[in-house]
Amino acid sequence: MHATAFAIPLWADLAAIGIGGTQGAMFAAQFRDRRLDLLGVAIIGIVSGFGGGMIRDVLLARLPAALTSNWYLLVAVGGALIGMLLESVLQRLGIVMTVLDALTIGLYCAIGTTKALALGVPAVPAVFVGVLSAVGGSILRDLLLNLPIALMHVGSLYAIAAVVGASTLVALHALGVPIFLAALLCVAVTFGVRVLAVLFRWSLPEQRRIERLPALRRRRAPAPRPPRGPLG
Amino acid sequence: MHATAFAIPLWADLAAIGIGGTQGAMFAAQFRDRRLDLLGVAIIGIVSGFGGGMIRDVLLARLPAALTSNWYLLVAVGGALIGMLLESVLQRLGIVMTVLDALTIGLYCAIGTTKALALGVPAVPAVFVGVLSAVGGSILRDLLLNLPIALMHVGSLYAIAAVVGASTLVALHALGVPIFLAALLCVAVTFGVRVLAVLFRWSLPEQRRIERLPALRRRRAPAPRPPRGPLG
Amino acid sequence: MHATAFAIPLWADLAAIGIGGTQGAMFAAQFRDRRLDLLGVAIIGIVSGFGGGMIRDVLLARLPAALTSNWYLLVAVGGALIGMLLESVLQRLGIVMTVLDALTIGLYCAIGTTKALALGVPAVPAVFVGVLSAVGGSILRDLLLNLPIALMHVGSLYAIAAVVGASTLVALHALGVPIFLAALLCVAVTFGVRVLAVLFRWSLPEQRRIERLPALRRRRAPAPRPPRGPLG
Repeated sequence: MHATAFAIPLWADLAAIGIGGTQGAMFAAQFRDRRLDLLGVAIIGIVSGFGGGMIRDVLLARLPAALTSNWYLLVAVGGALIGMLLESVLQRLGIVMTVLDALTIGLYCAIGTTKALALGVPAVPAVFVGVLSAVGGSILRDLLLNLPIALMHVGSLYAIAAVVGASTLVALHALGVPIFLAALLCVAVTFGVRVLAVLFRWSLPEQRRIERLPALRRRRAPAPRPPRGPLG
Repeated sequence: MHATAFAIPLWADLAAIGIGGTQGAMFAAQFRDRRLDLLGVAIIGIVSGFGGGMIRDVLLARLPAALTSNWYLLVAVGGALIGMLLESVLQRLGIVMTVLDALTIGLYCAIGTTKALALGVPAVPAVFVGVLSAVGGSILRDLLLNLPIALMHVGSLYAIAAVVGASTLVALHALGVPIFLAALLCVAVTFGVRVLAVLFRWSLPEQRRIERLPALRRRRAPAPRPPRGPLG
Repeated sequence: MHATAFAIPLWADLAAIGIGGTQGAMFAAQFRDRRLDLLGVAIIGIVSGFGGGMIRDVLLARLPAALTSNWYLLVAVGGALIGMLLESVLQRLGIVMTVLDALTIGLYCAIGTTKALALGVPAVPAVFVGVLSAVGGSILRDLLLNLPIALMHVGSLYAIAAVVGASTLVALHALGVPIFLAALLCVAVTFGVRVLAVLFRWSLPEQRRIERLPALRRRRAPAPRPPRGPLG
């Protein structure tokens, strides 16, 4: 049983992209020491706005939605300009932006997951595609800004919110719930986990290993990057 | 009305790729402290030579042109070897290389924009595809060399030249100008803006914001990277 | 004459992905100072496990194999968890892991090269696709961990082993050798070159140039990163 993609109205899609672009530019504006020109800000806006959707469509071997209409690029760049110009005003709307951002993640997660299901992708990779749709923009943004990928490091539950939301969608779909309802619950769950994670500062545990030989760790300590990877 | 892609002769395409490969290797050779082996130089040549074309075709969900013939890879790697071996000679041909490079950007921009138009992509995303074709190689090169993405930072008008050229092409195409003529003018405009930008050191203004509260900036100064992004 | 892709049993494919995931997590665990959470480790496992296969399928404009079954993601994440938890045990199995890793590279190289040939890609780009299949995961891993791309720098012959293996396959195929036999020899050659390179510490020569004017080098020395790239 294949789902049909969860089609949201174009204005909602564009609103999400505009918010993404605004937040990307606000994020980039923090780094005063790394001078970005106007083009750099526009690129970060584009990438934050629909980078996740581009990754989604490239993986699904489809022409990216953002290339099918003039509006996506215009709205993303416009959002980035607003974010750049009004940065100090918007920073004071912190909670509003967090709420809008959480809504955006939820929407992208639902769109990505249902699009994958509609193309016949099985449950687990459909969740993967949904999560990448939600967080891909932030990965590309950090790559372009030469920053550590925020997603990889200990922090509040950004991608996990999308994992929980997409899994909810896939599970409900498997149980026969109509796709529109499942997608709506995906948005709600992703939004809820994300906002609660910010409010209560939830985070995942760090990596650890089953360690029997503490001497090993001491011996390794002075050499922070020993060449023993497969490419060393 | 769909355009047909601006098909240039294979030898011109390959010449552009060879120049791109040569320049990539010359760029990489500047970094004596980051030791690259021969493979590394070949990779930079490949990426600089047809990385932009690969990004273009991946976004357009097409098999990359570089995978359809043996010549692309051979020419890109050959160009990289020449760039590595003759670096000190070529550095003294600075203006020649800048001119050839500007021509290369113009060609890729025209090929990318017309290919997108031919596939039915609307005007604004067609410009986006054309610009990415022109600058994608340099983005991939900087990512692989672990450098700040040059494109993002204040500098001479590299991507903007492509934006102006691609926009010219799209506008002329909309006015009914034959695609071959529009593409030729795209190459000329891109080339002209790029060369003039180098000669007169034009650059875009830096990012700025509408600032009413200078106290805010002072308060923020000591913490160069405060954790307030959405992933913080 | 088009080849049919070298289809290996799913269990062998998954075993390779699990080993890749385990090694990715072990690699990531070396960097105690860059804190990864559980999600970060899972991402590195996924990327190391089938990042190369994803790059292969994206370039070939096909839906990635990893999106066609639930198993790929589960096995890659499982492998990453094992690598994280049993890191100190596995480190002592160094030679076993190197052997398994070399086998994995060989398998991916053979799968990628035959898949490209089967889609009508000519010999040289087919080798390129095979090599990218083998090493793409490690490139993505280093990008996500914000490390210098290991592949680019002087080290043991990782990618070269894949180049030799894929070239062998393509040459044998052109000579009329059945694809299964050619693929088997590709695995054997890749494996052999890689293991011998580790044992005897083979490496490629560094980049060098034909230098007639030593004064030039001296004059350039104090400025480690002069702004003379095309984007400067």
